[in-house]
Amino acid sequence: MNAVYYQGEKGSFSELAARKYFGPGVKSIGLFQFDDVFRTVRSRKRAFGLIPVENTLTGSIHQNYDRLLKYDLWIWGEIKLRIRFNLFARPGAELPDLREVWSHPVALEQCQQFFNRHARLKVKPVYDTAGAAKILCAIRRNNVGIIAGPQVAKIYNLRTVEKKIEDNPQNYTRFLVLGKEKNVAPGPNAKTSLAFGVKNAPGVLFRCLSVFALRNIDLVKLESRPIIGKPWEYLFYIDFRGSLAEAKSRNAVESLTEAAAYTKVLGCYAEKPEAR
Amino acid sequence: MNAVYYQGEKGSFSELAARKYFGPGVKSIGLFQFDDVFRTVRSRKRAFGLIPVENTLTGSIHQNYDRLLKYDLWIWGEIKLRIRFNLFARPGAELPDLREVWSHPVALEQCQQFFNRHARLKVKPVYDTAGAAKILCAIRRNNVGIIAGPQVAKIYNLRTVEKKIEDNPQNYTRFLVLGKEKNVAPGPNAKTSLAFGVKNAPGVLFRCLSVFALRNIDLVKLESRPIIGKPWEYLFYIDFRGSLAEAKSRNAVESLTEAAAYTKVLGCYAEKPEAR
Repeated sequence: MNAVYYQGEKGSFSELAARKYFGPGVKSIGLFQFDDVFRTVRSRKRAFGLIPVENTLTGSIHQNYDRLLKYDLWIWGEIKLRIRFNLFARPGAELPDLREVWSHPVALEQCQQFFNRHARLKVKPVYDTAGAAKILCAIRRNNVGIIAGPQVAKIYNLRTVEKKIEDNPQNYTRFLVLGKEKNVAPGPNAKTSLAFGVKNAPGVLFRCLSVFALRNIDLVKLESRPIIGKPWEYLFYIDFRGSLAEAKSRNAVESLTEAAAYTKVLGCYAEKPEAR
Repeated sequence: MNAVYYQGEKGSFSELAARKYFGPGVKSIGLFQFDDVFRTVRSRKRAFGLIPVENTLTGSIHQNYDRLLKYDLWIWGEIKLRIRFNLFARPGAELPDLREVWSHPVALEQCQQFFNRHARLKVKPVYDTAGAAKILCAIRRNNVGIIAGPQVAKIYNLRTVEKKIEDNPQNYTRFLVLGKEKNVAPGPNAKTSLAFGVKNAPGVLFRCLSVFALRNIDLVKLESRPIIGKPWEYLFYIDFRGSLAEAKSRNAVESLTEAAAYTKVLGCYAEKPEAR
């Protein structure tokens, strides 16, 4: 492996997830857009990508599910990261000095109780949490605070003004690790992800799900997306517990291929609990 | 009925959907935010609300699904509207006069081919398609064009510069009509919407769906949403063909109540094809 690519600035949650997954010595490279990550991984044999696909408070990042199909990459792993938000300022600046707080719109929204307690603070949405830290580090304004993950403090030399200001501590983001080549994780902690499309007819979706139920296979996620250009037809994304190294899982996928109009396996990887 | 409430400006697709659904004489009132629509309908016996829930190109508007549960309203009907985008300018202004084009970010994104043909045009995102028309009508700038539905021409006295500039003609939005009271549409064209939650265990979702499959009931939509505060647990939204006036549908819902951890019927209404 030569590097892992993510979308965003140094200090973003994606970069933190990359370090937690691959270890602190990993060479991680932030790119401007998600499509850049997918394109880079598709063009390099020994590169990985790491992208967020789901947050426990806001739901799935559907565009990244769509890209999984479009770019034909393979899921090598997953990591679930606890999202913590701290308030940062320049060294020397205190909470009473701050007039404005900058961050990603979702981060601002998820710290509503903090802003209710400090109603005088003006919020300003910017493109990225770590991006807000980067800007503050560059413009050196003592009356601006930013909200980002604890990891930005060292990178941008910022002072932690207040810790854990997120409203809901049950805030986790799930990231997928993507590669160009295929890989099959062995059981018993393996998970398989796939997409399938059905023609809209009574019982078709049920028949598709029965291939898992009959084999007592546990579905851990099911998500639907409209099929572009085919109004009111849907594509389903499924994660199930099991490895394609086992006949039971392979048979389920083969039966699904018969029942569904379209089936595509996206990966088979080790299921990971939340990283602290 | 005294009025139908929608989110947006006069000339928005929601207002057009309200007129197509209730007839051209309906008293329709645009409100600032979706929550305003839900709150108003909840507080008035004889009011209806009309909200978008799904677009064939961009997918579901999840926040409105979440609000369906939060505000405890009842679905009275649906309407599927073809989304067409035209380019408008002030009377007298021609395409070569235009320097900027304003519209909702999604509308701008869905007219990408038009902007590729006219690369000199600068795009500017604003809060609403009809809002862009309203602003242009007020500021009277001949070098600004806007993208909105055909319906804005008369309302804001604008000139149609180019018709049907959307990339993909398979662009439909599905709207729901909401009321405070309950109503059950009779068969055979009725559709029932409900939400249910399951504890994550092998086969539970399958057992839930079996209550429909065993009765040969057609599921026309299935959508999952994370349950806030319960990481990796999901709520499912289902639409099935059938009326709660029929025993078959009622029995299916009763069986679902046994199989799922949580069940809530959201409405039973006439299924409508696309409006032209």
